[in-house]
Amino acid sequence: MTDASLDWLISVDDHILEPPHVWVDRVSAKDRDRAPHMEHDDDGLDYWVYDGNRYPSSGLSAVAGKSKEEFSPEPLPYSEMRPGCYDPKARLEDMDRAGILASLCFPTVTRFCGQLFMEASDREFGFVCLQAYNDWMIEEWCGSAPGRYIPLVLIPMWDPPLAAKELERCAGKGATSFAFSENPAPLGLPTIHDQDRYWDPVMAAANDLELVVSMYVGSSSQVPQIAPDAPFLANLPWGAMRTSGAMLSWLFSGMFERFPKLKIALSEGEIGWIPYYLERAEQVLDKQRHWVKKMGFLGHAAADDTLDLDSFDVRGTFREHIYGCFIDDAHGIKSLDEIGEDNVMCETDYPHSDSTWPDCIGVVKRRIGHLPTETQYKLLRGNAERLYRFLPAEPPVLADA
Amino acid sequence: MTDASLDWLISVDDHILEPPHVWVDRVSAKDRDRAPHMEHDDDGLDYWVYDGNRYPSSGLSAVAGKSKEEFSPEPLPYSEMRPGCYDPKARLEDMDRAGILASLCFPTVTRFCGQLFMEASDREFGFVCLQAYNDWMIEEWCGSAPGRYIPLVLIPMWDPPLAAKELERCAGKGATSFAFSENPAPLGLPTIHDQDRYWDPVMAAANDLELVVSMYVGSSSQVPQIAPDAPFLANLPWGAMRTSGAMLSWLFSGMFERFPKLKIALSEGEIGWIPYYLERAEQVLDKQRHWVKKMGFLGHAAADDTLDLDSFDVRGTFREHIYGCFIDDAHGIKSLDEIGEDNVMCETDYPHSDSTWPDCIGVVKRRIGHLPTETQYKLLRGNAERLYRFLPAEPPVLADA
Repeated sequence: MTDASLDWLISVDDHILEPPHVWVDRVSAKDRDRAPHMEHDDDGLDYWVYDGNRYPSSGLSAVAGKSKEEFSPEPLPYSEMRPGCYDPKARLEDMDRAGILASLCFPTVTRFCGQLFMEASDREFGFVCLQAYNDWMIEEWCGSAPGRYIPLVLIPMWDPPLAAKELERCAGKGATSFAFSENPAPLGLPTIHDQDRYWDPVMAAANDLELVVSMYVGSSSQVPQIAPDAPFLANLPWGAMRTSGAMLSWLFSGMFERFPKLKIALSEGEIGWIPYYLERAEQVLDKQRHWVKKMGFLGHAAADDTLDLDSFDVRGTFREHIYGCFIDDAHGIKSLDEIGEDNVMCETDYPHSDSTWPDCIGVVKRRIGHLPTETQYKLLRGNAERLYRFLPAEPPVLADA
Repeated sequence: MTDASLDWLISVDDHILEPPHVWVDRVSAKDRDRAPHMEHDDDGLDYWVYDGNRYPSSGLSAVAGKSKEEFSPEPLPYSEMRPGCYDPKARLEDMDRAGILASLCFPTVTRFCGQLFMEASDREFGFVCLQAYNDWMIEEWCGSAPGRYIPLVLIPMWDPPLAAKELERCAGKGATSFAFSENPAPLGLPTIHDQDRYWDPVMAAANDLELVVSMYVGSSSQVPQIAPDAPFLANLPWGAMRTSGAMLSWLFSGMFERFPKLKIALSEGEIGWIPYYLERAEQVLDKQRHWVKKMGFLGHAAADDTLDLDSFDVRGTFREHIYGCFIDDAHGIKSLDEIGEDNVMCETDYPHSDSTWPDCIGVVKRRIGHLPTETQYKLLRGNAERLYRFLPAEPPVLADA
């Protein structure tokens, strides 16, 4: 390992503003008008149109290149975005400049785990569109630059057996991860605690095919709100309450016991909150499990059957199955020994408003540069390579290098 | 400061199971049957009876002396509790044994901020009962052992001007703190962000009289639930999401700018989550304030008028106004420099199921014993003495000392 190997990072959370041709190029000619497609207004704005609805792009989803004083949630036409937002070749230039060797990208107009197609009036056609996205993601976005993009696919959340088939199809084409919701309940779906084990076909496929369950914070379509009139600036930093809930929910779900190869990634979840919640979960398990067991785990058969609370190892289960990632989290890095250096990856959130672009590698290096070289390598890329079974390209040789 | 001064702690969060005579002794004879009073069942159980409802005591609220294998949420009669749960003299023996020099106690049957009286069909009589509790707390509970109990009073949450008067009355009798809700919205009350500034009379009184706003985690009557069917053992360790919401809510409320002497205590809130949320709040403020300001703080005039976001100092405001406490929080103590050694107190949660009793001082000393003597003293008692303007009694000389 040379010092130069620490000059690049793999980002496990970035975002694509889908280019206009994703669906119209891939559905049959007669369906082009009802697949997601782009329309333009006289006022210079453009909108995704699908299933009778119009979706403008929020300016906050495409701030790359803008100063924070210019951030705005107002609709932003593609013509005013950096091409890296929607073009995989242009994105490479932005990645090279920021020290991003490879990137896993979440979708935008489909929402973070494909809610758009689940909510469609015609789910059968929604599934056609979802498959088109997956093919485009693998063949075009990732295919445009081998070793630079980690393919993340979508599943039909409304049909787990169909989702399992789609995972198998996509795994055959190279996918190693899929987007899942941090909390399916607000989406109107059964949770991972469902007594009828609604999600088992999906998780069995993920287990067998070794596909990472990537849960983007916000994929529950839930916006954290402390109180109905709490200021936005109070609610926004509260966001990780969703991810902490997801972590605890999965830890005590019995899923990892039933599907021992399952790995979940808390995408854009940050990590600084993890040590407290792991310690607290250990305390609660130690003190409260006896009476909880007597009450039948409060009736949650799915977990009752699989979790032996007396021998359950909170931290061991976390380290075996759960991965966090950080953009710029001083407290998280300071607490790395409590989280585990094998469970943390980095991300750049390009082109969202939390992004550190164009100084991505600089920001991460300032946080982790004091750690042993081997630890830095794990955080920068080693853990992502192992988790996503991803072999990145050789770092490009830059003109000014 | 001698080593012996580190042998005792002040606990800023313990609990009283109200003794049966609290109200019947203090209301007029004709009202005894409609004040909270205790009735006994043939099956050996006892219940508080008030306003047409019966309230048994949960076994988890009085576990002092029980092993964790014996914990149970089943109703528990007073006769099976340690007398320290409800008797201030018996409590002293339990405190002496555990190294607790002084204790601030929250009520039980009234709920943590007096919700019982707010929900009563006759609030006028509810206020009579609330005043009776406050008088009993100051005169009897605290009066039984000067320098051993910090008086915490209740306010009529439904009538802020009346609450302000009650605070003035109680402050005159020695109260230095009152119970408030970590989130009044679920109680059906206006929040601290209310445009009409519903809470200003209360906070103005607290400011002028220097009364600490003590917010017990759970005083919103909200039980954290990750998903409708999430296991209890996942929801329970998630509890601090409420306190983290309260902290962010207060930081961005403008309250501290309008009432600069106001201090809030996040009672039983633990501390290990604080560093992450402070850092995250700083990041969000730095990056997102520009567009949020343009949108008028999303319409929150109460904060708009008082908070200058460009100069707002998250960490400075926290250190000036917010206090956390811990029972046994390794990560929190490890992160003490990020929280601030002047903002942390300890607690024992007697006689609840999180309590470390009877080894309270031992548990705390094992966590903080490596810190400088002066820091230990602050955490053990110095910060509580300063915040609650409390002069504790000299530590008792124990028979076996």
